[in-house]
Amino acid sequence: MSSSDTATLLIHCPDQPGLVHAVTGFIFAHQGNILDLEQHIDPPENLFFMRVEWAVENFTLAKDDIAAAFAPLGEKYRMGWTLHFSSERKRVALFVSKESHCLYDLLSRHEAGELPVEIPVVVSNHEHLRPAAERFGIPFHCFPMSPATKAVQERAQIDLLREHAVDTVVLARYMQILSEDLIREFPNQILNIHHSFLPAFVGAKPYHQAYERGVKIIGATSHYVTAALDEGPIIHQDVMRVTHEDSVADLVRLGKDLEKTVLSKALWWHVRDKVLVYHNKTVVFS
Amino acid sequence: MSSSDTATLLIHCPDQPGLVHAVTGFIFAHQGNILDLEQHIDPPENLFFMRVEWAVENFTLAKDDIAAAFAPLGEKYRMGWTLHFSSERKRVALFVSKESHCLYDLLSRHEAGELPVEIPVVVSNHEHLRPAAERFGIPFHCFPMSPATKAVQERAQIDLLREHAVDTVVLARYMQILSEDLIREFPNQILNIHHSFLPAFVGAKPYHQAYERGVKIIGATSHYVTAALDEGPIIHQDVMRVTHEDSVADLVRLGKDLEKTVLSKALWWHVRDKVLVYHNKTVVFS
Amino acid sequence: MSSSDTATLLIHCPDQPGLVHAVTGFIFAHQGNILDLEQHIDPPENLFFMRVEWAVENFTLAKDDIAAAFAPLGEKYRMGWTLHFSSERKRVALFVSKESHCLYDLLSRHEAGELPVEIPVVVSNHEHLRPAAERFGIPFHCFPMSPATKAVQERAQIDLLREHAVDTVVLARYMQILSEDLIREFPNQILNIHHSFLPAFVGAKPYHQAYERGVKIIGATSHYVTAALDEGPIIHQDVMRVTHEDSVADLVRLGKDLEKTVLSKALWWHVRDKVLVYHNKTVVFS
Amino acid sequence: MSSSDTATLLIHCPDQPGLVHAVTGFIFAHQGNILDLEQHIDPPENLFFMRVEWAVENFTLAKDDIAAAFAPLGEKYRMGWTLHFSSERKRVALFVSKESHCLYDLLSRHEAGELPVEIPVVVSNHEHLRPAAERFGIPFHCFPMSPATKAVQERAQIDLLREHAVDTVVLARYMQILSEDLIREFPNQILNIHHSFLPAFVGAKPYHQAYERGVKIIGATSHYVTAALDEGPIIHQDVMRVTHEDSVADLVRLGKDLEKTVLSKALWWHVRDKVLVYHNKTVVFS
Repeated sequence: MSSSDTATLLIHCPDQPGLVHAVTGFIFAHQGNILDLEQHIDPPENLFFMRVEWAVENFTLAKDDIAAAFAPLGEKYRMGWTLHFSSERKRVALFVSKESHCLYDLLSRHEAGELPVEIPVVVSNHEHLRPAAERFGIPFHCFPMSPATKAVQERAQIDLLREHAVDTVVLARYMQILSEDLIREFPNQILNIHHSFLPAFVGAKPYHQAYERGVKIIGATSHYVTAALDEGPIIHQDVMRVTHEDSVADLVRLGKDLEKTVLSKALWWHVRDKVLVYHNKTVVFS
Repeated sequence: MSSSDTATLLIHCPDQPGLVHAVTGFIFAHQGNILDLEQHIDPPENLFFMRVEWAVENFTLAKDDIAAAFAPLGEKYRMGWTLHFSSERKRVALFVSKESHCLYDLLSRHEAGELPVEIPVVVSNHEHLRPAAERFGIPFHCFPMSPATKAVQERAQIDLLREHAVDTVVLARYMQILSEDLIREFPNQILNIHHSFLPAFVGAKPYHQAYERGVKIIGATSHYVTAALDEGPIIHQDVMRVTHEDSVADLVRLGKDLEKTVLSKALWWHVRDKVLVYHNKTVVFS
Repeated sequence: MSSSDTATLLIHCPDQPGLVHAVTGFIFAHQGNILDLEQHIDPPENLFFMRVEWAVENFTLAKDDIAAAFAPLGEKYRMGWTLHFSSERKRVALFVSKESHCLYDLLSRHEAGELPVEIPVVVSNHEHLRPAAERFGIPFHCFPMSPATKAVQERAQIDLLREHAVDTVVLARYMQILSEDLIREFPNQILNIHHSFLPAFVGAKPYHQAYERGVKIIGATSHYVTAALDEGPIIHQDVMRVTHEDSVADLVRLGKDLEKTVLSKALWWHVRDKVLVYHNKTVVFS
Repeated sequence: MSSSDTATLLIHCPDQPGLVHAVTGFIFAHQGNILDLEQHIDPPENLFFMRVEWAVENFTLAKDDIAAAFAPLGEKYRMGWTLHFSSERKRVALFVSKESHCLYDLLSRHEAGELPVEIPVVVSNHEHLRPAAERFGIPFHCFPMSPATKAVQERAQIDLLREHAVDTVVLARYMQILSEDLIREFPNQILNIHHSFLPAFVGAKPYHQAYERGVKIIGATSHYVTAALDEGPIIHQDVMRVTHEDSVADLVRLGKDLEKTVLSKALWWHVRDKVLVYHNKTVVFS
């Protein structure tokens, strides 16, 4: 991870010859030095995906002019594309309930400089983790939820997120199902951690389900949140081995390590603009 | 793995104090030297499980007398128990269709002395793998299947298995669903390899299902066959990481390594009498 | 993990018939209910190892009388043995330098009730992590080290540990080599985390060494500290895959996740009295 | 893996702006359709690495003319480069001794069409595995080795390999140290499988060394053979977990699965022209 500023283009479009040449030509024409380039072709869909990152230093286009300069190329090849700068850190809101492990994991990574993001706010439906957030100097907002208040509270949450200019929401073991309104406000920008290897054990109490089924591995999955519960595009998954010796309580305890590493890794890729979503899947340029 | 003969007791019963003491007392009373002892308690079910293996050499009971001598103890504690001798190798029939990887894997392990079993026969619904089996000197029997002939052919299969005194059936990528008759003949003695991490992707074409869902790991599961398709007690599972780069063909190719190692490992535990089944789960004293 | 009090015996001795029977007989004679029993035999060394845990409730011996009552049995079989009670939590001192990840990991697990220990004190050779420890309400003591002061400072550390009745020391990325005096005070009670899969890359800067060698996996190892640097008995190890894309800085960043999980898992086994040391190796009754 | 013919360029050179653009320009100018493109920059060394694969079909340059047409570009940027066609399968000689597992694994993959190579010959210093090779219809040549005959026999081996137009040698548990002459004949074209996670446990009997050290993981490493024993560039590594229960014989048995999968995976990357060697390391465009 270079400390100096970089520009990143994330591109997808119908595949055809000359795409890499055209994009690198744009960068080369303005004396950009490519630091990382990855492309992927999905032959069944005839789709082209690309991520290219170059140094802003010495680039002959001003940062504010790059998008306009690239637009004609994007149009010519019917590209969907986004432009990102490493110096413009994502602003991440952490949503939690009562479990502290993912929250502490992310806050301590952030404090150690491992996660290049801003964390302007921690949101919860309980007061429980207020001390944890405040210990790390992050404002904590509690929105108690009941069926009667949920719609109003979620509207207030959205307002809070907008006020803090949040662009990424991380559900760090937040035990509420988001309404479609909130999801629609942050398309492919809400990361969840589900404590199973999806698509196995969707819904509530996956460790109990795993114990009942007698599986020999447990897992965790981080995915973007969509309207279909636990069915959004998967970013990252991992598993660990368990045995007949492990009770449900053991699975819960052991699984926390998976949840922490899977969520933080997915977030790492997200904030470094490594993830492209299409057809309910992800391309992760890791 | 000692080369000399050992006796193994596999026991399950309601838990109560004194069980280990009682069983080890039986062995000690006849001057048996315990080589391996594992026990497991399932508190929610109040069940006790135990595997104990001891050297037959110097044991003061003749092998043929051990079962009768142990029976009163088993009755006293309401045990389900089985007695096994390492010198009495399991007789394993391999069932295959057209894919060769699991067959070659098991035959080459067997030839190298890695798998302490007899393999009297390979059974298939196609002629395709006859040369593979015969290369290793194993008789090959083909039972072509059609909806009309299935019942008759399975009856013939059962006869063949009985004729060869088979006690364990391994479905090494056998692409037929067994009838309940055949399953009933070999309770908890038929091992299958399913090419997904169950319970995800049951049924046909799990790699296609995995590709469609966009998972980041694929898996394989070995389980005992029961009447409910892909729902039998799981013996062993493993996974590997895949990416957006991997096509369905890649998943199929990569997954074969999982299928081979998961099936052979499950069989290893089965033939060494390490597996106990209860409540559609396994205790694997690995 | 049961919440009620349990007693655990850790035993090793020359192997002979009747050992399990004798030990379980002692427990059964006082109406103990065995919750967990594991034994291991090392045939090349003819050694017997055993861990047995039983419920203190209803045991007819008072806790204070168990050791004396068991002693004759221990003597008869020439056992080395130790007796532990789950209600008597280990008192763990955390030693750190400037890296916070292992410290936060252990403190947050402790706060969440995942680690059944007391943490009376955090010790460091730098002031750097004082706020981290104090945030969690743990006293922090700084012992700056120089070649001239090291002997005096270590003596003061030992006094502090004794004052806090510490029985376990965890070097959570403590970047000082302990003197033999301190090691001798806590035999097989000092856990270190080394950031490589030992025995590869002993000593300083293992990630740099790994990068230079071009390995495709990196690892972490938790071991008991002995006088020979990085050569103590290994408790736990884990690895992760890396590629040519990963710089030294990436290895350092990625490896932190391994260091955290490997150290916390090793500590978990240590504090639950699951680890026996012999011949510079460990038996981990996991 | 497409069945139609592809061309692949493997390139390394000093990094500078415009390299990707120049190479893709060459391909685009002749109407090539890029199927896969990966590049890697090593900033500390200021080196650029690239692999690009395109469809030969519709390319306006004849296959025989591509190298000459690309040469000026290579010269301009001081590139080291090689050109490969998927239709020109590598010719692989397998070297074995007495252990059959890697041999059977590779032969059965080859027969199943998993490995796109020719295997013209199996070479050994023992007669032991002749039946295994011949079962799969591969000629077997035995070169018994003694200190007195080694030089002559290796010369004969080289002649045999040349006669069979071999370009890749796989040491599939070949228990002889190759002379520098043979190594020099096949630079970065001899793959070895070493049964440890290098650099730990170089040399003889790594499983015995692992057992002695009491490690909790064992591994296998595939690397290119160089004059320095077990120190060549690493292509692939993997590990598995072991415990105090595992004897040396268990490690040997368990490790075979690692050896098979690590070696076959390394060979897969090698034959698909995915591996670049520099500074005793590999770039694996996997």
